[in-house]
Amino acid sequence: MTDHALYVDINSDMGEGFGAYRLGDDAAILDIVSSANVACGFHGGDPEVMAATFAMAREKGVAVGAHPGFADLWGFGRRIIPHSAGEIERLVAYQIGAAQALSTYAGHPIRYVKSHGALGNLTQTDRSVAEAVTRAIKAVDPGLMCLAIALGHQDRFAREAGLTVKSEIFADRAYTEEGFLVSRKLEGAVIHDAGKAAERVVRMVRQGGIETVSGKLLKTPIDSICVHSDTPSAVAIAARVRAGLEADGVTIRAFAAPA
Amino acid sequence: MTDHALYVDINSDMGEGFGAYRLGDDAAILDIVSSANVACGFHGGDPEVMAATFAMAREKGVAVGAHPGFADLWGFGRRIIPHSAGEIERLVAYQIGAAQALSTYAGHPIRYVKSHGALGNLTQTDRSVAEAVTRAIKAVDPGLMCLAIALGHQDRFAREAGLTVKSEIFADRAYTEEGFLVSRKLEGAVIHDAGKAAERVVRMVRQGGIETVSGKLLKTPIDSICVHSDTPSAVAIAARVRAGLEADGVTIRAFAAPA
Amino acid sequence: MTDHALYVDINSDMGEGFGAYRLGDDAAILDIVSSANVACGFHGGDPEVMAATFAMAREKGVAVGAHPGFADLWGFGRRIIPHSAGEIERLVAYQIGAAQALSTYAGHPIRYVKSHGALGNLTQTDRSVAEAVTRAIKAVDPGLMCLAIALGHQDRFAREAGLTVKSEIFADRAYTEEGFLVSRKLEGAVIHDAGKAAERVVRMVRQGGIETVSGKLLKTPIDSICVHSDTPSAVAIAARVRAGLEADGVTIRAFAAPA
Amino acid sequence: MTDHALYVDINSDMGEGFGAYRLGDDAAILDIVSSANVACGFHGGDPEVMAATFAMAREKGVAVGAHPGFADLWGFGRRIIPHSAGEIERLVAYQIGAAQALSTYAGHPIRYVKSHGALGNLTQTDRSVAEAVTRAIKAVDPGLMCLAIALGHQDRFAREAGLTVKSEIFADRAYTEEGFLVSRKLEGAVIHDAGKAAERVVRMVRQGGIETVSGKLLKTPIDSICVHSDTPSAVAIAARVRAGLEADGVTIRAFAAPA
Repeated sequence: MTDHALYVDINSDMGEGFGAYRLGDDAAILDIVSSANVACGFHGGDPEVMAATFAMAREKGVAVGAHPGFADLWGFGRRIIPHSAGEIERLVAYQIGAAQALSTYAGHPIRYVKSHGALGNLTQTDRSVAEAVTRAIKAVDPGLMCLAIALGHQDRFAREAGLTVKSEIFADRAYTEEGFLVSRKLEGAVIHDAGKAAERVVRMVRQGGIETVSGKLLKTPIDSICVHSDTPSAVAIAARVRAGLEADGVTIRAFAAPA
Repeated sequence: MTDHALYVDINSDMGEGFGAYRLGDDAAILDIVSSANVACGFHGGDPEVMAATFAMAREKGVAVGAHPGFADLWGFGRRIIPHSAGEIERLVAYQIGAAQALSTYAGHPIRYVKSHGALGNLTQTDRSVAEAVTRAIKAVDPGLMCLAIALGHQDRFAREAGLTVKSEIFADRAYTEEGFLVSRKLEGAVIHDAGKAAERVVRMVRQGGIETVSGKLLKTPIDSICVHSDTPSAVAIAARVRAGLEADGVTIRAFAAPA
Repeated sequence: MTDHALYVDINSDMGEGFGAYRLGDDAAILDIVSSANVACGFHGGDPEVMAATFAMAREKGVAVGAHPGFADLWGFGRRIIPHSAGEIERLVAYQIGAAQALSTYAGHPIRYVKSHGALGNLTQTDRSVAEAVTRAIKAVDPGLMCLAIALGHQDRFAREAGLTVKSEIFADRAYTEEGFLVSRKLEGAVIHDAGKAAERVVRMVRQGGIETVSGKLLKTPIDSICVHSDTPSAVAIAARVRAGLEADGVTIRAFAAPA
Repeated sequence: MTDHALYVDINSDMGEGFGAYRLGDDAAILDIVSSANVACGFHGGDPEVMAATFAMAREKGVAVGAHPGFADLWGFGRRIIPHSAGEIERLVAYQIGAAQALSTYAGHPIRYVKSHGALGNLTQTDRSVAEAVTRAIKAVDPGLMCLAIALGHQDRFAREAGLTVKSEIFADRAYTEEGFLVSRKLEGAVIHDAGKAAERVVRMVRQGGIETVSGKLLKTPIDSICVHSDTPSAVAIAARVRAGLEADGVTIRAFAAPA
């Protein structure tokens, strides 16, 4: 059925522990993904966790990116902390720098930036936040790619601003007709069946677009599939998505070649 | 009396505020010093304060360096937080990266690293800490200079390890016969008289060495004079030290040319 | 014009330092106010600052209350951190307990609770937050009074719920026709003239109501006047307000007698 | 062999999560212990975790105590943070108050105080720290009991100072001839065999003393056995210790009756 070679990246959040705390099974997910978004110490992560995560990703040949979030360890970056666009610019710049330093220290420099949690959602829906993150990346290192939610403000704006942008879709989340994520408060927002999630991802990658809840296709480049690692069932979905893609002839490959 | 041109740098800690808090009079001290050690968010500082401090230093033509400290906002980096050497290496690397990013963002990249407070004291007296900081600098960016306490472990070890090292003396602190700082708990540890501090600094710069409490001279390169900014009287001492040096024909100049 | 004895309290936020940081001139303002709202370590304050502030208030005969805020040292409690009502209930309960312990330790137990910053504003405008704070006070110690913004949700709801409520007005803030504070973003929101602020406060206390921007009077009990201490001019306004009240025959007295 | 009824308490640390993080299996250990030491937000715990832990302990009929530690979330309270005795007094007082408030809120007030981690170790070995913790408990609420490491400074000093003291031994740790814990760095410091741990605990309870590494018995009251909950094997040891005691006719009962 596959008439030409197809490639796609699989990314997941990682290095989200702090001190004595751990979150998710990084070792397991690193065997599935091709890119690891590494927390930078604001919503999770600390210098020890960061360095260890970069080193582990290097050993497993997984590309790494900075994963900046709000300075909200208590809320794990999932709450919208009120900030001006300028403040967001600087807190993202700070975290990119920290990630650059520790990934360089670990011999495996970051190649991209992806925003975390509530900040990530804002980059999709709020143009001023998307612009702030774009400016931060450009100011610190315009050679870093931007991993953005497909069809969101970050995706469009970072592209216009001249950054190399890679577009991601979510393996287990339903999409509205406008291409936004269906709120987790609504039924059907999250796809819990690993088999269905895998089939749907393969369809989206093959068709080159996002499938909305009504079954409509919204055309978009799809450079990466975002999977979760925070629960055993999330890891199982991730594994199934990868297996489904490979069975369909899609090669899993990082969008960013090693530095 | 001056038979040839002499140059020396004056450095001070800066950007030590956090959120709504401010510490020291950065604007006043920036008119006196040639190098600013900028806090990196662990013992003081935050992305807003850092970016503003780098920008202000740029405007005033003052060179900037990263000023990493222990992750101890409550103790302002003045307490020894127990860490392995590896942990120190990584928490310093993290902070250097953050400072690189925000100084680049502000158009005025850092040129050097100087350790803060209790960490700084350990770099003078504990070889394993001096080595950890050196490894952090080398791993993140070996082009960064190391500003070290004259005659301490950091000074010696970073030099041996191939970094460009600049040696500093303190304008207002008495020295033991071994070249260590006299403990603040002892009488005479701190020189409060601005005139005496200035005369002593001029003498040390002219003679090329540290004056101990007994009046002995310990030979050392003196690339920079460390002054304080946290009280009005500290700023007054700093101003007098600068004036004293200039009156004696010594030019105040950053050891690090702009990037 | 004064036909009978009148009493009113003057309150101010205090103990807002953290570690090496200080904010406002607590010693100066303690000579002006009769009640001190003491920060509890979330938006400002730490065990050292709290104990010292309670002890200083005790020496000066100033009543003390807990001043809980959002867990947001960086934003100094001035940002709305997203929380469920239940979470607000528990973070307020926690802070009340901490304040009870350290004020008891200092021999000067807290008598009331007043919410800080963004949390305080929400207690005025959002009934669910007012209810949450009320439930926290009742659960921890129903003998504690509630100091609430006059005419707001907290004032009404805590009263209905059976707490002893004291109503405060602001010395230097303009009021809308509905009795809300005029947004700081609008001109005239803050009264900077000490004389005008004092005259207006005397008028409001004498007339028993809030003066809106149009000059309308909204009737309300006025048990306390809130003054600020964070700038020298704020302290000057506070002093003038006290002097104006006393000159008019109004006695300044804490609404809460010593425990 | 049992000639009279014997009672002993089993205690464990609990509520050590923070925000999205969890540590240990609190639900499992609550079925084994009779007393729960609840973290107070400094080294672990937050208002949500605390309230939930107190409520869960109430449901299971387990007595609760405050478990104050150093303000060191990153180090989980296991590092010695330099403090004066006065500072320790106040940071313990603060945490006791927070625990009192949230346990009262949950309808299950704390009955005792036990220090955590590095602070706990210092209360055993450093008299000035033992005194500071004692003063904190007495100042905040002298009705609270003190759970102390048997034969340590805390045990002796709190008793002399008039507090009700309960003495604990560790189920899985070897003791020196002086009754101190053998350093974890030494072989044999931790007993990993559940059966051996259980037998040894039964022997110590029956004989009324601590068994040192040489087999010597150091006489001491034994009011409580400390077990761990942070790993599945720790929970297994705890269950075996309880089963061993019960099989030998020892009743497991909280030393503190419900408030």
